[in-house]
Amino acid sequence: MPMPCRLASRGNEPDTVVRAASARFGDGAFALIGGPCSIESEEQIRRIAAAVGQAGAAMLRGGAWKTRTSPYDFQGLGDAAVDLIAAAAAETALPVVVEALCEAHVARLARSVAMIQIGARNMQNVELLRCAGRSGLPVLLKRGPSATLDELLLAAEYLLLEGCRGVVLCERGIRGFDPSTRNVLDLGGALRLKELTHLPVIVDPSHATGRRSLIEPLVLAAAAAGLDGAIVEVHPHPDAALSDAAQAIDCPTFARIARGAARVLATLTYELSA
Amino acid sequence: MPMPCRLASRGNEPDTVVRAASARFGDGAFALIGGPCSIESEEQIRRIAAAVGQAGAAMLRGGAWKTRTSPYDFQGLGDAAVDLIAAAAAETALPVVVEALCEAHVARLARSVAMIQIGARNMQNVELLRCAGRSGLPVLLKRGPSATLDELLLAAEYLLLEGCRGVVLCERGIRGFDPSTRNVLDLGGALRLKELTHLPVIVDPSHATGRRSLIEPLVLAAAAAGLDGAIVEVHPHPDAALSDAAQAIDCPTFARIARGAARVLATLTYELSA
Amino acid sequence: MPMPCRLASRGNEPDTVVRAASARFGDGAFALIGGPCSIESEEQIRRIAAAVGQAGAAMLRGGAWKTRTSPYDFQGLGDAAVDLIAAAAAETALPVVVEALCEAHVARLARSVAMIQIGARNMQNVELLRCAGRSGLPVLLKRGPSATLDELLLAAEYLLLEGCRGVVLCERGIRGFDPSTRNVLDLGGALRLKELTHLPVIVDPSHATGRRSLIEPLVLAAAAAGLDGAIVEVHPHPDAALSDAAQAIDCPTFARIARGAARVLATLTYELSA
Amino acid sequence: MPMPCRLASRGNEPDTVVRAASARFGDGAFALIGGPCSIESEEQIRRIAAAVGQAGAAMLRGGAWKTRTSPYDFQGLGDAAVDLIAAAAAETALPVVVEALCEAHVARLARSVAMIQIGARNMQNVELLRCAGRSGLPVLLKRGPSATLDELLLAAEYLLLEGCRGVVLCERGIRGFDPSTRNVLDLGGALRLKELTHLPVIVDPSHATGRRSLIEPLVLAAAAAGLDGAIVEVHPHPDAALSDAAQAIDCPTFARIARGAARVLATLTYELSA
Repeated sequence: MPMPCRLASRGNEPDTVVRAASARFGDGAFALIGGPCSIESEEQIRRIAAAVGQAGAAMLRGGAWKTRTSPYDFQGLGDAAVDLIAAAAAETALPVVVEALCEAHVARLARSVAMIQIGARNMQNVELLRCAGRSGLPVLLKRGPSATLDELLLAAEYLLLEGCRGVVLCERGIRGFDPSTRNVLDLGGALRLKELTHLPVIVDPSHATGRRSLIEPLVLAAAAAGLDGAIVEVHPHPDAALSDAAQAIDCPTFARIARGAARVLATLTYELSA
Repeated sequence: MPMPCRLASRGNEPDTVVRAASARFGDGAFALIGGPCSIESEEQIRRIAAAVGQAGAAMLRGGAWKTRTSPYDFQGLGDAAVDLIAAAAAETALPVVVEALCEAHVARLARSVAMIQIGARNMQNVELLRCAGRSGLPVLLKRGPSATLDELLLAAEYLLLEGCRGVVLCERGIRGFDPSTRNVLDLGGALRLKELTHLPVIVDPSHATGRRSLIEPLVLAAAAAGLDGAIVEVHPHPDAALSDAAQAIDCPTFARIARGAARVLATLTYELSA
Repeated sequence: MPMPCRLASRGNEPDTVVRAASARFGDGAFALIGGPCSIESEEQIRRIAAAVGQAGAAMLRGGAWKTRTSPYDFQGLGDAAVDLIAAAAAETALPVVVEALCEAHVARLARSVAMIQIGARNMQNVELLRCAGRSGLPVLLKRGPSATLDELLLAAEYLLLEGCRGVVLCERGIRGFDPSTRNVLDLGGALRLKELTHLPVIVDPSHATGRRSLIEPLVLAAAAAGLDGAIVEVHPHPDAALSDAAQAIDCPTFARIARGAARVLATLTYELSA
Repeated sequence: MPMPCRLASRGNEPDTVVRAASARFGDGAFALIGGPCSIESEEQIRRIAAAVGQAGAAMLRGGAWKTRTSPYDFQGLGDAAVDLIAAAAAETALPVVVEALCEAHVARLARSVAMIQIGARNMQNVELLRCAGRSGLPVLLKRGPSATLDELLLAAEYLLLEGCRGVVLCERGIRGFDPSTRNVLDLGGALRLKELTHLPVIVDPSHATGRRSLIEPLVLAAAAAGLDGAIVEVHPHPDAALSDAAQAIDCPTFARIARGAARVLATLTYELSA
């Protein structure tokens, strides 16, 4: 079955560099995005913004409206959270990415952030894709837990056909059969994706594994494999996080990961220059 | 991990009967829904409505806005299709179910049909769930291709918390590793679901298998297993269907399936009455 | 990728009927195999043999050497169990099927039983397949938990190339992502398998679901779908079974299932004869 | 469900170092195993042995008896191949690992090689596990394509209970739903495995992806993640390989991978020593 992605397919294209304010994806560097699953308070997001900025992150993430599996779980602070993260970002000059769940969120975010995230649960929500594609912002598009690479590229095609300013693809774990990890990080699939498309590809080891202890090795692995970046959940006090506590890392760990990824990246250019 | 579905869980509840105009789900009968993947023309939907009505279907289905994997595939006739199916249904006194992809669709459907469908791709689109839950109509909620039973029940909980008039759950195939069938019909999961919830559970063998030849045996299987019904794609000329041609059956086959399901159902009551 | 199964493929062949002593698979009837996961004692296997024989089972099953996931679990009574089940079968005139784990078991079974089982864990143990194929006995070949239909047919081809007297294929559940059931019974796959091969196809709902309450509806479903039979774990006191207790049913339930399957089967011939 | 692996579980144990002649697994280095899927000729295996030895490989692999999905595919040269690889290894002083499919193979290999491989298809072939555990050789145990980490550890427990001299675990790809890659390399699972056990853990990106172009980035990823090594299929003329041609790399690529892995490994110790 041919899957003709006229705009998203690699064809003979070189890597596309996607810009979100000062952030760059696909330029050969390894872009780290850090921040909390949920924006919880002014102090929380300011502390995280300062820490991830100092560590060299390319962007700050934070959830405003959460699409939780259970309606009884914390659903995010909503519009107020957008103001909080926008203010925190302004202090640190970090560009911000926030997930939108519906058209109203897209409109709200278009005024305040540098990039819109479409989450894994909405990867094939075509109305949302079309709306985000027309927003004037680049989009971070997460792979659904049972989406093939072709399906992910076709979702990107929905964005690009609306004139989307840039699309960054994110592998965040596919559904697996073993409860040992929350999902399965499909690193091989992410690498194959880079062959199929000119768009940048990053990974989300936080959602992929659901385990704090596995974040650092998997970010280093993604850097060594030549992917374009990673998005990681960071919290000043991970165990006290209102959502996804088990997979959040603290700020010093984020800084150590950033240093490690930079060192790994440096080894990759050795062979070419040697 | 406890998943407290206060409203959707079985608890000590008997089976809930969900009503959509004249249709009943969960009353011990086996409710068949038939109709085309996409509403294509006045003549097409009128012919199908007449045929499935005569065969004893409980409801007529038809797609107006299609959420296709590829943006280059036929996307449905949209609003015009709602008028066509509503008119066809009026002639045959068949209640109608149509899928909504966004809040605007929910508002449009609330004036014209008896039940709203939330598709597998939108099972965790919580904004759409909330909106459909407030629509005043019952909802046919399809299980996502990698959703656990708990996740499906929590999606139903989103609907019920908004006061939804009734929820029918639909197993439509989970993602599998074997391309022999489009998806894997999880009949055991559907049966387990009936133990976990008081809501009616039906199956969709068309999307589950993607193969015309497997529809009839799987509908009979669902009837023999004691599930509450099935939704089947029907087209006067299956090979000419604008979407999902490989899995559509023709009208005489639908009638034969309806007769077969009725006979199978009759055998289930034998042991009790004997 | 073409998968040329010269011997196992349907081609233009009608259904092959496989005989194991008095048992028949693929002749249009629905053959039930019943018996314990593990043969535990003379009394246990004699009681079960009597009960399943009286209920109309086609064969008696029982495990002698168990291939358990954990080395600390009960591993079966071994050779002694073969004597016990052979004696019990002689009293009831029921043909017996027992699983072999290695070549020595095949040799032992060839003297005592009517059919050899190759379990799901050994579906691609080609040395065992070749040996069982040469044993002079028909083989019950179970699908591995992550085997495609093509892979199952190629495993059958290994048997047939050695001159195997007959192969019955068994769908016993594929690995799934939802712990709600032990595995996922792929009924659609089993039906597709019947289209791809002339060999008989049965299901094993005990291993597929791991839940006692789901056995009866799934056997009736398999009968309604037109498959060739089912293999079910039966124990006089299911909760006391030394292995797979959660999925064993008691003897009266087995008898009720046999009656139900016969009634369902009768409805399938109605359309043809009407 | 508790899975008590008395011998294989991490408990409070430090990493176990497994020795196979001069090879070491689990000592903090990154051990590369290279060699052909199938041993095809004296010249082929000698050339590969020389190349992988020169590149710094820890071991030489090669298939003698192949467990192919289809009985019509090349099944390996058998016993003759063991002589060929043993001779090639003697010239290069490289320890050898070869897969055994049955007890006779274990006996044959015990006289000629340094380590026995149990393949993914035989991970739960308990008779083979017991036999290999008693062989006096260390064992390379591959994870089955649908085995959980607990199941893999319990298979290792079968080996260890027989007194096995050492067990190296290998993640070689789990079954996935996307044909874009042959399987899914579960790198997160391999890392979690290291937490659950004191045994060394390596990866097999050749079987995991089935794509030559993905081998190098995935080996570097495994090194960056801190795993203990990788096993890679190498062939002088990959496109002419008699089995698994699409995933074999040539000898210069293997050498480049070995250099890259060494550089990546060096960066990991930086933080500790800095």
